[in-house]
Amino acid sequence: MSPMLESYAAGRWFRAADEGEPLLDAATGEEVARISSHGLDVAAMVAHARQAGGPALRALTFHERAALLKALAKHLLTRKDELYALSVRTGATSRDTMVDVDGGIGTLFSYASKGARELPNDTIVLDGSLERLGKGGTFVGQHIYASRPGVAVQINAFNFPVWGMLEKLAPAFLAGLPTIVKPASQTAYLTELAVRQIIESQILPEGTLQLLAGGASGLLDALTIQDSVAFTGSAHTAGILRRHPNVLDGGVVLGVEADSLNCSILGPDVQPGDPEFDLFIKGVATEMTVKAGQKCTAIRRVLVPEPMADPVIEALSARLAKVTVGDPRNPDVRMGALASLGQRDEVTKAVEALRSSAEIVFGDQNATLLDGDPERGAFMTPLVLHARPGATEPHDVEPFGPVSTVLTYDGLDSAIALAARGKGSLAASVVTHDPDVARTIVLGLAPWHGRVLVLDRDDAQESTGHGSPLPVLVHGGPGRAGGGEELGGIRGVLHHMQRTAVQASPDQLTAVTGRWTTGSKHLPSDVHPFRKSLADLRIGDTITSATRTVTLDDIEHFADFTGDTFYAHTDAEAAARNPLFGGIVAHGYLVVSLAAGLFVDPAPGPVLANFGVDGLRFVTPVKAGDTIQVTLTVKQITPRTNADYGEVRWDAVVTNQEAQPVATYDVLTLVAKTWPASDS
Amino acid sequence: MSPMLESYAAGRWFRAADEGEPLLDAATGEEVARISSHGLDVAAMVAHARQAGGPALRALTFHERAALLKALAKHLLTRKDELYALSVRTGATSRDTMVDVDGGIGTLFSYASKGARELPNDTIVLDGSLERLGKGGTFVGQHIYASRPGVAVQINAFNFPVWGMLEKLAPAFLAGLPTIVKPASQTAYLTELAVRQIIESQILPEGTLQLLAGGASGLLDALTIQDSVAFTGSAHTAGILRRHPNVLDGGVVLGVEADSLNCSILGPDVQPGDPEFDLFIKGVATEMTVKAGQKCTAIRRVLVPEPMADPVIEALSARLAKVTVGDPRNPDVRMGALASLGQRDEVTKAVEALRSSAEIVFGDQNATLLDGDPERGAFMTPLVLHARPGATEPHDVEPFGPVSTVLTYDGLDSAIALAARGKGSLAASVVTHDPDVARTIVLGLAPWHGRVLVLDRDDAQESTGHGSPLPVLVHGGPGRAGGGEELGGIRGVLHHMQRTAVQASPDQLTAVTGRWTTGSKHLPSDVHPFRKSLADLRIGDTITSATRTVTLDDIEHFADFTGDTFYAHTDAEAAARNPLFGGIVAHGYLVVSLAAGLFVDPAPGPVLANFGVDGLRFVTPVKAGDTIQVTLTVKQITPRTNADYGEVRWDAVVTNQEAQPVATYDVLTLVAKTWPASDS
Repeated sequence: MSPMLESYAAGRWFRAADEGEPLLDAATGEEVARISSHGLDVAAMVAHARQAGGPALRALTFHERAALLKALAKHLLTRKDELYALSVRTGATSRDTMVDVDGGIGTLFSYASKGARELPNDTIVLDGSLERLGKGGTFVGQHIYASRPGVAVQINAFNFPVWGMLEKLAPAFLAGLPTIVKPASQTAYLTELAVRQIIESQILPEGTLQLLAGGASGLLDALTIQDSVAFTGSAHTAGILRRHPNVLDGGVVLGVEADSLNCSILGPDVQPGDPEFDLFIKGVATEMTVKAGQKCTAIRRVLVPEPMADPVIEALSARLAKVTVGDPRNPDVRMGALASLGQRDEVTKAVEALRSSAEIVFGDQNATLLDGDPERGAFMTPLVLHARPGATEPHDVEPFGPVSTVLTYDGLDSAIALAARGKGSLAASVVTHDPDVARTIVLGLAPWHGRVLVLDRDDAQESTGHGSPLPVLVHGGPGRAGGGEELGGIRGVLHHMQRTAVQASPDQLTAVTGRWTTGSKHLPSDVHPFRKSLADLRIGDTITSATRTVTLDDIEHFADFTGDTFYAHTDAEAAARNPLFGGIVAHGYLVVSLAAGLFVDPAPGPVLANFGVDGLRFVTPVKAGDTIQVTLTVKQITPRTNADYGEVRWDAVVTNQEAQPVATYDVLTLVAKTWPASDS
Repeated sequence: MSPMLESYAAGRWFRAADEGEPLLDAATGEEVARISSHGLDVAAMVAHARQAGGPALRALTFHERAALLKALAKHLLTRKDELYALSVRTGATSRDTMVDVDGGIGTLFSYASKGARELPNDTIVLDGSLERLGKGGTFVGQHIYASRPGVAVQINAFNFPVWGMLEKLAPAFLAGLPTIVKPASQTAYLTELAVRQIIESQILPEGTLQLLAGGASGLLDALTIQDSVAFTGSAHTAGILRRHPNVLDGGVVLGVEADSLNCSILGPDVQPGDPEFDLFIKGVATEMTVKAGQKCTAIRRVLVPEPMADPVIEALSARLAKVTVGDPRNPDVRMGALASLGQRDEVTKAVEALRSSAEIVFGDQNATLLDGDPERGAFMTPLVLHARPGATEPHDVEPFGPVSTVLTYDGLDSAIALAARGKGSLAASVVTHDPDVARTIVLGLAPWHGRVLVLDRDDAQESTGHGSPLPVLVHGGPGRAGGGEELGGIRGVLHHMQRTAVQASPDQLTAVTGRWTTGSKHLPSDVHPFRKSLADLRIGDTITSATRTVTLDDIEHFADFTGDTFYAHTDAEAAARNPLFGGIVAHGYLVVSLAAGLFVDPAPGPVLANFGVDGLRFVTPVKAGDTIQVTLTVKQITPRTNADYGEVRWDAVVTNQEAQPVATYDVLTLVAKTWPASDS
């Protein structure tokens, strides 16, 4: 008997004592492993995540969590070969495994990078601008995202046993949520291996990742408000999860990413011979054959202008005829097996349903296999159908395999209407070189899709294709696609957090957020804050500068020197006619240049550089004779994990002699962590 | 018999032919109106919204929609008196009606303002930054929000018949969704009057607002993907809606805002005699008595340190003893009636349940009423309970009336744990003047709440109080509070739209979004774009400037002139030791000043002013001898609805002699709509 898969539960590996269910090699039918969760205490797993994993994770800042994800990605890279070797048993070719394994590791790297660059080195995220809630400025509001003290459960599909786990783990981990993974049984042995590699590395804090191999009975019963379930799989199973009392009434947040009837549209501008025609054929064929079409984003519906139906079917057939099907251990095989004989039966049934309104125009069920035994391996050759006018099944029935249906449209509105009949999809593509077609189709499809690809000769070389979810773009879609949203860079992290509006005085808001709030107090500083390293700087440290009177000479001189002789600075008569100024005004750039002259402390010190300015607004014109002064306050301090310095964001307000603000902005500087710099 | 309320359906007023159900004056028991939707074709209402309202609305830009909301708000202000006169029949005092009517109108004004200031003058919203998806820059991604071609159904609670409608209408309208309002029967006559005022004004396009007065049988059955239901009311009814097949499996998006067991926490730093003590007592008493405590955000749980229980109960009792209860027509009445005798029965039942673990410490059920007949009017006097240690009911049972329970805590962690036992609430408050207490409590409460107020002596005067949702802050909460999110400024608009990731070449992305994308083509322009008015400017119009070599003299001169003598610009030896520069560099402000000199066209023309700069980053140091050049490209054009000019956002890239970017930023200008300016 093959080995029993183990669950990683509450800090140890658990092996069920019963015989479990056999998991078979997709191509050979041999038993790979057995699976069972009999006797596993799933409630204890949830409790362990809550009590050990969650607190350990939330004690880290976003940057620290990001650094762990990066270390994990590097570690998995070193053990990729083991994953590849096992992956072949799922029916996957090397190309398929690359999508799963390298795609998963790439997602970790992407989140590590986004977490370090786009999140603060803190444990909460500020959302949007400060809202002034009272005229006097003593009552203000700020939205924050805070970590939930809960557990992120992921229930995954069989088709991407590694990527499916890592793409959900990365954003949840950044958000501060420990994860419990429940893989689909069919390919759970590959997920188990990946989890084993992760646990052995000891990179992630104990309790932040647990594995449930086998049935998940009782898991949802143990969840409550603050917990979430991210499900990828069929609409049918999603429906069952939606009906669980803890989801309906218990506050458990359920996210669903379900298979959908994604379409690809050939633009009416494209003719055979155009580069876009070939790109279209290649894109459809690729989506049909990668993972043997077992991708929730695969193209099920091929929408073409009526006159293009025959040329498309001909070209697609010719391309698919070259696809060799068989045991993925054979390097000449381009398309491997479906995940199981049961899956193949499901696809066959779906094809039968489609045939009630479409005819098969390409496909040979008896084609020769390379090293494949059709009785024991779940092989299937690609199949193209052509829908009859008014067909309904292609919009409802999903063959989760290497099967697509060609449908014809008449005009852009008709193409959009056909696409919408999928009732909500994960991804669509339109292949066109006409910008008007691109705009009309994309905006028409957008409400029905989570992602839309425009493919043409310009982006083809770098395009990642119709079917590939990317970590930086949202993955999910409305309606039939489940209504969820995953990935999308930091968006995917924030989905795991609670957004809360905080109302307070500026001082209290500064205390709550750890970021200086306009209106809160300036701290007296005995030295110029430019003399303080990150170790000494405090939120609220302030420079109130000397004053400088801006003369007409200054303005004229600046115009001469920079060449910025815009009439509002140089021509009194013309400037007087300007509806906004009514006379000569100082250049905005002059004002901020003089302000820098007022606030800078020139000698070498911990402030290394001014690397940028954000949100600069010139709110009141500065006229000759006005006297300006600048107040610069430490607003946010972000130490960098891998450098001797960090970023300091300063709130800058330039005022005139009447204390009116004339310019407001944030000054961004790099400041050494210690000064004098430690030898390193 | 009193008049039958009418529904506004498919462009006409509909009156049911049956007798309907009577609606009674909350204070006098007299019949106000009758209500029935018998014979109303609700599916036709949905179809009308889809076919007439939606397309008309989505043909307008966000700014045009905002202008209509503003006009509507102004119109309703002129007819406020009618609403006040009728509102008294719901049991509301003038103060209560102000929350409902003025609060609703204020929400319209707020959304009108946010829509014009924070949304583009367009029909889609760009979300986040451009994502470079390939190294070569030929494949890029951008998230957009697009309007759904659906219908927004609102199902409202009885307590705010005007605000409840308007706070949901405003964001949906801005998002491009037509609305169908289904008010709670008890107070539907006030909603009907407000809808009548709106329809008579003819300000909103036909089909964008419809009213369903009476039972909503069949309404959810008519909804599908792209439609949404926003429900405010009890957790029980929310559970019924969640179980509708079109919600479970049909892709209808359901948002729930349910009553919750909100708490207010007295900080451990506060003692009797402190201003915060009085603020706390006043806040609790106000929340108990406004709308007779019938507010989903009202304070149900009063959490105080154990030693403060007696002083709090004493002070609260003293304050509540002065609250006069009775018919709201009597100007001396401070608290009116509950909405109905049935509601009063519900509250009485809840109080009975609470008494199993708490005792009543203030309240006189037989107190004298001002002009009120307790048999016919739903009067109830305020009631304070004191929970026994370990009480569970106060965390589960919600008395939707003038009732609060005092509970004691021991330490901040205990206060947070008690608050969390509400299982998710809309709003919480903490009254403290200690910044550490504020930070600990707010961050502890945040995952459990949609909004948290910190109240102290500094913000008290301008604070809007614990219970008031504000249009600019999110309203909603996790768990028991329903898990929904409304309002929050533009956040509330985006919830009604679909977010979609678009992948394309830069040129195609420019075509799709109407905004210039880095990497897409620059349009040749025969005149300097500064000579073009908004009418002539095109996305992609570009200035490629002359070049200028930055000399050491320039840098030294700029340092002298501005006073910015930072060592990296003035001291070769010290600059050489700077880890980032390794030698003298030009000031960033010098670079952008010279760039302006290179791109500006000085003569009077349509460009009126440079009002700001966004996202300025100095990406490569400029050294003496470097030659810079600037490329300025029209990125976004936003005509202002109420001005002769609009905003033009320019993409600015300053490069050096090796074509490396040295500075990147957006330049913001005001540009006349026509030039020469038309006489206006």
